[in-house]
Amino acid sequence: MKDREQKNSTPLSFKTFLNMTNEKIFSYIDHTLLKMTSSWDEIKTVCDEAVLYKTASVCIPPSYVKPVYNEYKDLNICTVIGFPLGYSVTNAKVLEAERAILSGAGEIDMVINIGDVKNKNYDLVLEEIKLVKKSCGNKILKVIIETCFLSEDEKIRLCGIVTQAGADYIKTSTGFGTNGATLADVELFKKHIGCNVKIKAAGGVKTRGDLEAFINAGAARIGTSSAVKLLASSAEMTADY
Amino acid sequence: MKDREQKNSTPLSFKTFLNMTNEKIFSYIDHTLLKMTSSWDEIKTVCDEAVLYKTASVCIPPSYVKPVYNEYKDLNICTVIGFPLGYSVTNAKVLEAERAILSGAGEIDMVINIGDVKNKNYDLVLEEIKLVKKSCGNKILKVIIETCFLSEDEKIRLCGIVTQAGADYIKTSTGFGTNGATLADVELFKKHIGCNVKIKAAGGVKTRGDLEAFINAGAARIGTSSAVKLLASSAEMTADY
Repeated sequence: MKDREQKNSTPLSFKTFLNMTNEKIFSYIDHTLLKMTSSWDEIKTVCDEAVLYKTASVCIPPSYVKPVYNEYKDLNICTVIGFPLGYSVTNAKVLEAERAILSGAGEIDMVINIGDVKNKNYDLVLEEIKLVKKSCGNKILKVIIETCFLSEDEKIRLCGIVTQAGADYIKTSTGFGTNGATLADVELFKKHIGCNVKIKAAGGVKTRGDLEAFINAGAARIGTSSAVKLLASSAEMTADY
Repeated sequence: MKDREQKNSTPLSFKTFLNMTNEKIFSYIDHTLLKMTSSWDEIKTVCDEAVLYKTASVCIPPSYVKPVYNEYKDLNICTVIGFPLGYSVTNAKVLEAERAILSGAGEIDMVINIGDVKNKNYDLVLEEIKLVKKSCGNKILKVIIETCFLSEDEKIRLCGIVTQAGADYIKTSTGFGTNGATLADVELFKKHIGCNVKIKAAGGVKTRGDLEAFINAGAARIGTSSAVKLLASSAEMTADY
């Protein structure tokens, strides 16, 4: 019940901190378009918005990294690998990360192999993240653990694995699972990750109140396709108060 | 309206052909488990069923190909690449196919890049399928075009591309899109593919009547996780008549 409340509304404890500027919120946003059908025109629209609103990055499919880099030299490009199911082989994830970075990506969001978690092969999960991190060099690696399919014990265990592997972020969700980020998960991550790991919340961010609540809860990034629409509309800007 | 009727029930024209044996139907089935969370125990159950019922293949995530090959030497293993969104880069799809075949896969179901279709870059779609086919050697390549996101013109164009690329099958759906196979799509494929290309219907096969209708419509394979449950239950076996 508590969990459901946290998903559907901004908890009272965060209300007092609302009132961030749009600029501040945008600086936390990975402006995201990961639809299977995305056309170049749609991708360009998202990139133009990312430039205009100075979001932290634009998050797009791997096959669009090179054309976006060619057209938007100064844009911080984030892409996804092993996405969204996470069960491609490690070699493929490593190659995808290498190619993405060669093509101009500055940030890689990888999905872990949940089968390995269910089989309690945590060593494989650790090894895979380490290998992808190595192929990222000095670029940022975020590790998506897809919380909606995990028990609390599994989430806690993965906080340790992601920290140990040297990844830069732990990320809640792909946005393609049965549920997205919850404030409860961000709170749990905060308790169990190391000090060099940041948190990205993704999926299910529906209101300006959600955006502010996740930032106040400790998320250093939010992955969403809705931020521009939410913040550009003055009606939406006040609707959640 | 016609389309909806075909999805939800067996059309009258096929009713007269019903009454296939279970054995015959199983010989058309790619017995499929592609959940993100699949554990080794779940995969083994599906493999045991595939052996017992002599399905055409077992269709499993790439990361399970090697362990399944090690434990089930005589099983025909199918796996998926660029799955389910299709927007990983071509090099990654080629590597995934190569690794899967080296690990023991006999069949590869690849997803095309729908963005390329929407951008009308059909040359890229053709080139990618050719490269993956090359990496498959003498193994079977099925090409998933994800019909639920395509116009009729796009589907017809892709029948030509898949034929020209030398793929073995055209496949309707990933099962992760907004809709699965329809009889109308199988009929459309039949009209527009070359004589060396077969049809795989996947997604949305819910009854024994559906299974028989897709086979009668011309599908040489059906991808489903439900066949064993449907055919093993005598109640289900007669429920659709």
